[in-house]
Amino acid sequence: MTTKATRYTGNKTFEIVDAPVTAPEPGEVRIKVAYCGVCGTDVHIYHGMMDQRVSIPLTIGHEMSGTVDAVGEGVTGFSVGEKVVVRPLDDRGAKPSDKGHNHIASALKFIGIDSPGAMQPYWNVPAFTLHKLPDTSDLRLAALIEPLAVACHDVRLSGLKENEYAVVLGGGPIGMLVAMRARSAGAKVLISETNETRVAMAKELGFAVVNPAKENLVDYVSAQTDGGLADVVFEVAGVQPTIDVMTDVAGIRGRIVLVAIHGQPRPVNLFKFFWKELQLIGARVYEPEDYEDAIRLVAEKSLPLESLITAVAPLTEVQSVFEQIDRDPNGMKVLLDCQA
Amino acid sequence: MTTKATRYTGNKTFEIVDAPVTAPEPGEVRIKVAYCGVCGTDVHIYHGMMDQRVSIPLTIGHEMSGTVDAVGEGVTGFSVGEKVVVRPLDDRGAKPSDKGHNHIASALKFIGIDSPGAMQPYWNVPAFTLHKLPDTSDLRLAALIEPLAVACHDVRLSGLKENEYAVVLGGGPIGMLVAMRARSAGAKVLISETNETRVAMAKELGFAVVNPAKENLVDYVSAQTDGGLADVVFEVAGVQPTIDVMTDVAGIRGRIVLVAIHGQPRPVNLFKFFWKELQLIGARVYEPEDYEDAIRLVAEKSLPLESLITAVAPLTEVQSVFEQIDRDPNGMKVLLDCQA
Repeated sequence: MTTKATRYTGNKTFEIVDAPVTAPEPGEVRIKVAYCGVCGTDVHIYHGMMDQRVSIPLTIGHEMSGTVDAVGEGVTGFSVGEKVVVRPLDDRGAKPSDKGHNHIASALKFIGIDSPGAMQPYWNVPAFTLHKLPDTSDLRLAALIEPLAVACHDVRLSGLKENEYAVVLGGGPIGMLVAMRARSAGAKVLISETNETRVAMAKELGFAVVNPAKENLVDYVSAQTDGGLADVVFEVAGVQPTIDVMTDVAGIRGRIVLVAIHGQPRPVNLFKFFWKELQLIGARVYEPEDYEDAIRLVAEKSLPLESLITAVAPLTEVQSVFEQIDRDPNGMKVLLDCQA
Repeated sequence: MTTKATRYTGNKTFEIVDAPVTAPEPGEVRIKVAYCGVCGTDVHIYHGMMDQRVSIPLTIGHEMSGTVDAVGEGVTGFSVGEKVVVRPLDDRGAKPSDKGHNHIASALKFIGIDSPGAMQPYWNVPAFTLHKLPDTSDLRLAALIEPLAVACHDVRLSGLKENEYAVVLGGGPIGMLVAMRARSAGAKVLISETNETRVAMAKELGFAVVNPAKENLVDYVSAQTDGGLADVVFEVAGVQPTIDVMTDVAGIRGRIVLVAIHGQPRPVNLFKFFWKELQLIGARVYEPEDYEDAIRLVAEKSLPLESLITAVAPLTEVQSVFEQIDRDPNGMKVLLDCQA
């Protein structure tokens, strides 16, 4: 049996190839992929920014949902038909020097970047990467579990407490998910975003929003907090202006969670770290408990995740989907229907 | 009764003036000052760097020990002759927006900078700033309690645990005290320092030392830790090279305590904060429990504090003491004998 799988071949190009459906190796599970979201990292790959890391041609994709389709030798606890998601971290190379933080082990392999990913109808993965979903889970929304787990990780590492004031710098998909998770933790949440379409969306979702190109963010937050400023700041934008403002908008002993990737050293106001005893907390991917948190939130349907889904397109339209994402600065999350 | 008090008058000059010994106001205690150490901040004041903040002429000084000499109206719990130190933080202007972190309240006044300090034989201070010392405390060493409390605060905020590997960037007085406090917490401690006199002193004190001008610090720490690198880094040097190395020498989930004052924004490798989930923890002055920790350590005589005292000079020689400190890059801590 063969199916139509996608492969990134470099030069902003995907091809559709006939791929055999293979039996899972020992320790593996074959997944019938339901949906696969397009991550910012996938777009970076499409742009050729990661060609040194990616083994071209490669099937990419890691924000997925699906069902167990076949179980390899030695795998227990999974049955065909069960709904699952993959936590795409292959930490089998973890060493003692990683100090038990295997989710960011120095030899970590990210499945879907360093090895084949989910933008195909059937996908064989190590069984240890699987998390089961409740039967009632919506597989479309479940494709958001991976990015939501990022947000759960970020909020958990921030130590956010009920009634604290959180500022999210950047209202893209991860920023919105962080804001949702922070609000569900009982925080007061403000999103700072310059794209007016995203500003409008954040407002529709019930968030306080400031466009810092139009209004002074620090003054706004100071007025809202009687001068106390933000207890927690999430830096999700990855640009110098958010690095500049993060140390101003954080109050005394504020915690700043660094979610964004900064490809170059950035001037940082270290004096404010000293003066206000600020903390900067680097946060990358997720740990198993963050996945369980995200799975629970999707099952409860307590977050307005549906609103983040810009479009659902057939897998075979992958090329036009990436081209469309490139043209649309307002889009949030596009899902590929991997069985269409 | 009058005594000879010192006053900073600007332009790298101290004068000795006849000062009356005044009765303490209600809520105050008069201290007979035994010793007052010269802090780096005092040297900054002497250099005119803080003339905008300091009300010239001003008696400065805040690293002191002494005995209670008179007790003002309404003050209870203190008796004449008791050994004390002052925690020189006047937090009476603290507001709810300081969130209870009164030691770094936005309206904090630092006694000895924003109001008269300890470089005089008798000093009236609010009673709430006092900490009692055990009778057996050595008042010379007790003059180190203030900077030692800084070190106690830094180590406490780092969350340092037994057997963790700590790197102290900068082997000046605060760096040495941080190293001592970290070692007494059971950590393995390495000091990075470029001044060879300080390198030799740190070695005499039993610390592992690297001179990063001569040897690769990261390679050294990696070899010592089987690649795990530092669990905790203390940035006590305040220069760009230590900002550059701090993110390299910290291992996965390493905590970097920012002790030094950086007067300008510094390029920081934020990617490493993300990639290794590093934390940056700003640390400023101390809280009451840090003073109690320092007082206990001085009373126990468990730290080699004596070795940090470069010289003890009569108070009236304050001018030549500051001139000598300016000439001597190797000196550690000079004490003024405030009764001589």
